[in-house]
Amino acid sequence: MNSLMRYSTEGRGMDFNGKAVEGVVSVQPIVRFDSSGGFRSTMDDCVREHPLLVQLDGVPIVRVVLSPYRLEEFVVGFLVNEGFIEGPGDIRSIEVSGGTASVFCSPSRSLVAPGNETAVLESTGATRLEPRPKTLKKPGALRPGPLVTSEVVFRCMKSLDKMPIHRRTGGTHCAVLFTAEGEEVFGCEDIGRHNAVDKTVGGAIRAGAELKHSWLAVAGRLAADMVRKPAASGIPLIASLAAATYDGVELGRRSGLTVIGHCKKGSFNCYCHPERIKDYRPVA
Amino acid sequence: MNSLMRYSTEGRGMDFNGKAVEGVVSVQPIVRFDSSGGFRSTMDDCVREHPLLVQLDGVPIVRVVLSPYRLEEFVVGFLVNEGFIEGPGDIRSIEVSGGTASVFCSPSRSLVAPGNETAVLESTGATRLEPRPKTLKKPGALRPGPLVTSEVVFRCMKSLDKMPIHRRTGGTHCAVLFTAEGEEVFGCEDIGRHNAVDKTVGGAIRAGAELKHSWLAVAGRLAADMVRKPAASGIPLIASLAAATYDGVELGRRSGLTVIGHCKKGSFNCYCHPERIKDYRPVA
Repeated sequence: MNSLMRYSTEGRGMDFNGKAVEGVVSVQPIVRFDSSGGFRSTMDDCVREHPLLVQLDGVPIVRVVLSPYRLEEFVVGFLVNEGFIEGPGDIRSIEVSGGTASVFCSPSRSLVAPGNETAVLESTGATRLEPRPKTLKKPGALRPGPLVTSEVVFRCMKSLDKMPIHRRTGGTHCAVLFTAEGEEVFGCEDIGRHNAVDKTVGGAIRAGAELKHSWLAVAGRLAADMVRKPAASGIPLIASLAAATYDGVELGRRSGLTVIGHCKKGSFNCYCHPERIKDYRPVA
Repeated sequence: MNSLMRYSTEGRGMDFNGKAVEGVVSVQPIVRFDSSGGFRSTMDDCVREHPLLVQLDGVPIVRVVLSPYRLEEFVVGFLVNEGFIEGPGDIRSIEVSGGTASVFCSPSRSLVAPGNETAVLESTGATRLEPRPKTLKKPGALRPGPLVTSEVVFRCMKSLDKMPIHRRTGGTHCAVLFTAEGEEVFGCEDIGRHNAVDKTVGGAIRAGAELKHSWLAVAGRLAADMVRKPAASGIPLIASLAAATYDGVELGRRSGLTVIGHCKKGSFNCYCHPERIKDYRPVA
């Protein structure tokens, strides 16, 4: 999509929460082909990629390429979702400068254990760096009992449509945290679906949200690496417009997490732990 | 999607090229909710994830999680697309066993250079392991001059729809290599979009295809890490149903690669090097 107006607002845009962001989108000169009108030189809004190395207590723990906004939120959410820290209270300082984020933890904690291996498995093509956290948090701190109605799930999933950066560029994923009643807590877009979840969780806990009373809505597939994040950070339910993988479902079942997918047009699949859907009535 | 018939064919399916594959899909028991009919216990076909460690001459070079079929094709394509080898002729042996692929190269070559860092940047959340190839191949072996017509591009992109594993599970990406005339050379589906490209290129070159006369069609976004693969392996054009990122376009422009995106409903964006589209006529 193109317009001179947008060209003049190079790099600026609005994020999921209606705040202005800079540097996330830039224009590229392109040739647009239309079978009725031929070739036309014009401009196109494209999302930007930004490399970031995260160091925890001086040790590099991950390199990612992400959308260049909400970088502190990303760092906090990544550390919580991957089990490096319990929450923002474990962090003494964060400094993001250029392509490096330096995080120092409370002196009483020594969270990073350098490993023998150089990377850890993720799904869908990704690897993560060692070192791993010394004590990986066990999934299972998930709050039991009913959480949301199917009506709340459908209503909230619809609001994933707004995605202002995706509408301009077609280039982002998103993740949104909701309360049990369906109020939006925090949402983010990012070129990476994992990054969107990390930013959203980081932003929400910095704003004081209680993850155990919340649930996470995403647009992308629920592979094991996506299901692991809410299970580790204590969010009891994840729902997606897309499908779950076999391994994502297995991880959800073992972790006690409710996993919902294929959520569209008045129907969804609940892959495991449907007891958190308030109107669920078991039928053989 | 569910049926007893599919439940009885656990794990089996057809791949993009019409061949039977095993172990790629498994069923999960789910609760399907429909707002008109309530909750119903049933079965759902889900894609499986499989971890694979690739070792080159005894050195671990990448860990991925992928769809468990065409693993040798993945390994060959990955090594070519990432610049570790020139082609299958550099490989003395490949053995894939369980979660490990061991590749040995011709004794005259020593391709792997252990690096100081433990991982390399990818986009959209991924990292790759060191070591890197000693001599990264320079992009730029791309054949200049006209390659395809816009009609061929549209016709071929339509055939991305078939994706038999995606139709069953909703859980895969795909990549297909075509000749300049629009004949299908090789196609693959995978839970990872990078993996699909690596498998497709590996399968095509093992079948003797000439990459420099071919072009690559994908469904997913063209971030820099996706654009790098055809540029490195000598495929002169990549086209996608989805958008390119700013950084993907920059890399394509520098590499001499033609990058096409947003290809649907009779129009597309050519982000750079439109001169390979036979019917291209420059207009101011």
